[in-house]
Amino acid sequence: MKRVYNFSAGPSCLPVEVLQKAADEMVSYGDSGMSVMEMSHRSSYFKDILAEAKSLYKELMNVPDNYEILFLQGGASTQFAMVPLNLLSKSNKADFMVTGSWAKKAYQESARYGEAKVIASSEDKTFSYIPKVDSKDFTPDADFFHICVNNTIYGSRFRPDNLPDTGDVPLVGDMSSNILSEVYDVSKFGLIYAGAQKNMGPAGVTAVIIRKDLIGHAKDITPTMLNYKIHADNDSCYNTPPCYGIYICKLVYEWVKAKGGVAAMEKINKEKAKKLYDFIDNSKLFTAPVVPEDRSIMNVTFVTGSDELDALFVKESKKAGMENLKGHRSIGGMRASIYNAMPMAGIDTLIDFMTKFEKENA
Amino acid sequence: MKRVYNFSAGPSCLPVEVLQKAADEMVSYGDSGMSVMEMSHRSSYFKDILAEAKSLYKELMNVPDNYEILFLQGGASTQFAMVPLNLLSKSNKADFMVTGSWAKKAYQESARYGEAKVIASSEDKTFSYIPKVDSKDFTPDADFFHICVNNTIYGSRFRPDNLPDTGDVPLVGDMSSNILSEVYDVSKFGLIYAGAQKNMGPAGVTAVIIRKDLIGHAKDITPTMLNYKIHADNDSCYNTPPCYGIYICKLVYEWVKAKGGVAAMEKINKEKAKKLYDFIDNSKLFTAPVVPEDRSIMNVTFVTGSDELDALFVKESKKAGMENLKGHRSIGGMRASIYNAMPMAGIDTLIDFMTKFEKENA
Ligand SMILES: Cc1ncc(COP(=O)(O)O)c(C=O)c1O
Ligand SMILES: Cc1ncc(COP(=O)(O)O)c(C=O)c1O
Ligand SMILES: [Mg+2]
Ligand SMILES: [Mg+2]
Ligand SMILES: [Mg+2]
Ligand SMILES: [Mg+2]
Repeated sequence: MKRVYNFSAGPSCLPVEVLQKAADEMVSYGDSGMSVMEMSHRSSYFKDILAEAKSLYKELMNVPDNYEILFLQGGASTQFAMVPLNLLSKSNKADFMVTGSWAKKAYQESARYGEAKVIASSEDKTFSYIPKVDSKDFTPDADFFHICVNNTIYGSRFRPDNLPDTGDVPLVGDMSSNILSEVYDVSKFGLIYAGAQKNMGPAGVTAVIIRKDLIGHAKDITPTMLNYKIHADNDSCYNTPPCYGIYICKLVYEWVKAKGGVAAMEKINKEKAKKLYDFIDNSKLFTAPVVPEDRSIMNVTFVTGSDELDALFVKESKKAGMENLKGHRSIGGMRASIYNAMPMAGIDTLIDFMTKFEKENA
Repeated sequence: MKRVYNFSAGPSCLPVEVLQKAADEMVSYGDSGMSVMEMSHRSSYFKDILAEAKSLYKELMNVPDNYEILFLQGGASTQFAMVPLNLLSKSNKADFMVTGSWAKKAYQESARYGEAKVIASSEDKTFSYIPKVDSKDFTPDADFFHICVNNTIYGSRFRPDNLPDTGDVPLVGDMSSNILSEVYDVSKFGLIYAGAQKNMGPAGVTAVIIRKDLIGHAKDITPTMLNYKIHADNDSCYNTPPCYGIYICKLVYEWVKAKGGVAAMEKINKEKAKKLYDFIDNSKLFTAPVVPEDRSIMNVTFVTGSDELDALFVKESKKAGMENLKGHRSIGGMRASIYNAMPMAGIDTLIDFMTKFEKENA
């Protein structure tokens, strides 16, 4: 079966073993005589799948017992509203670091429901770095402090050792594009959310890890379906959950676990990213715009400096079997999203192509 | 491959041809070298899938041009909030017919955002009928009038010729459990929503058909992701849509079209339902609680009159290869959900089993 190297930022490549297994089990899951898509969410078959997904995610992320795990619908964009609707419960204030377009959207949605303050922004330099911040500038009684841990579009990230120290204020992290990619200490967060469609499964599932004390304080105007408490009280089955997507997430969790877990993924991901960044830094043609210490190990952005050459690169790389290397429409250039499922062979193929391209277009 | 007859109310049986095709295309869709799950929602591959899904749904439902079709996340339960948040824009009043648990939940959620009035309820007789109503009792300046067209749990339905005549007030229909099952005139509705997981695809997609003039009047408090206008303006791609679920819906639409469309499905569905209801009505042991003229042709509820026999029936039917015949936990008894994908052979197998069961337990 033909397979390309798919560098899409999301939805994005999944482990081929997972897809193969899903294909094998599509018409009948185990000896059930049913597809997972056809199973009642109240059936013991699906309950087992959900419990297994939850327990694997807990294990992989090393989630402490005082956190709840929820599998929701609506994408990370729905979290932009759920977070303020549920967490703005005391001072009605929240702090934000604006390190990219998604971080900004989260801020804008929160500003509709409470007093949202931008503590720092890197928009001045096209989001090419993570601003240094001082806890003294944070709102001491904020209900939460929001960061986008990995900035998918611009290719920067908060390293695990560079999270803002928010003290007692719950840190909320959008980890849509770097979930399960390297080890983060969940206990430093009040809430972590991630759309599944990058490193975890198909679009249509959002995994939320929320500290239990943050559940149950939703604003009166909160739609029932956007209330974390409703989903926590019903183990993500208040209504019909995105069952098939959760099943695929479970298969991906199993795959990550078999590879050695998140720490093992981190090691490989850092090797993959280093190889690519080193090549770019040594190249005369290609440049990576993000400052080295804040670079994402999932989304590698780079440019030639010429719009024409960038366009040619995207076109010719596609012919060479590499898909979706075009940068996000808002910044142009190139972006190689190298999630967990991208093998080293994909990086090597890309670097070979870049070498050849540089030679031909020097 | 083992297949059972799956009478689940949702998620529920899908055409085996659709599942087979999905399995075949799982690792590489056409010559793309990617799974549909891995495709960027901005890619031409996925754009084609979405456009095709939309156009097939429009064709099958005979949707007039002044309506928009949206594929959303959040299930029908999220529509319970989206409808009032978007439609309560003038008088802030809405009318409801409470013909089952879902109808009631829709009413309760609307009551949180505006003045919601119950025009009629059949709760007095365990929702076993559709109340007769008189337009004179309707709120003349209501912003909408909501009905649950098919009551999944209790097994009743508003026949296409028995819709309330709401005049200029937009009729909103929850068609989660009878979408694509028989011909309804879309132009009689202002909005029709349906969770996909019964007759259309997997859980995680909600199809909304909305008259264009009803778009763009959301309340200020409406979360961006719950605003129909956001999704209409962005052709259901404001954020990452549930791509894989939409693809499965497309395959189901193709299957329905190949069978002759909704009118053809209606004919078969009525034959299937009639056979089963006739058997029940002629049986001494089994009774169907819903009044004949309001019976659902999708969800057939029946009882023996004895809780013990009901439990035995469910247990033994499972052994005989029929899954999920247990009635909803809120009413007990039995329920056979016989959606489009349930073949006549499934009905025959069920009736044979019921015949045997009656003989053995008379
Ligand atoms: C970091 C981040 N946050 C949020 C989103 C929005 O996610 P969704 O499309 O699931 O709403 C994305 C999507 O690419 C993202 O990369
Ligand atoms: C008629 C009807 N409306 C609404 C719902 C709720 O749908 P969801 O679980 O997608 O929120 C159901 C689910 O069974 C239903 O049958
Ligand atoms: Mg970004
Ligand atoms: Mg360089
Ligand atoms: Mg009902
Ligand atoms: Mg009888």
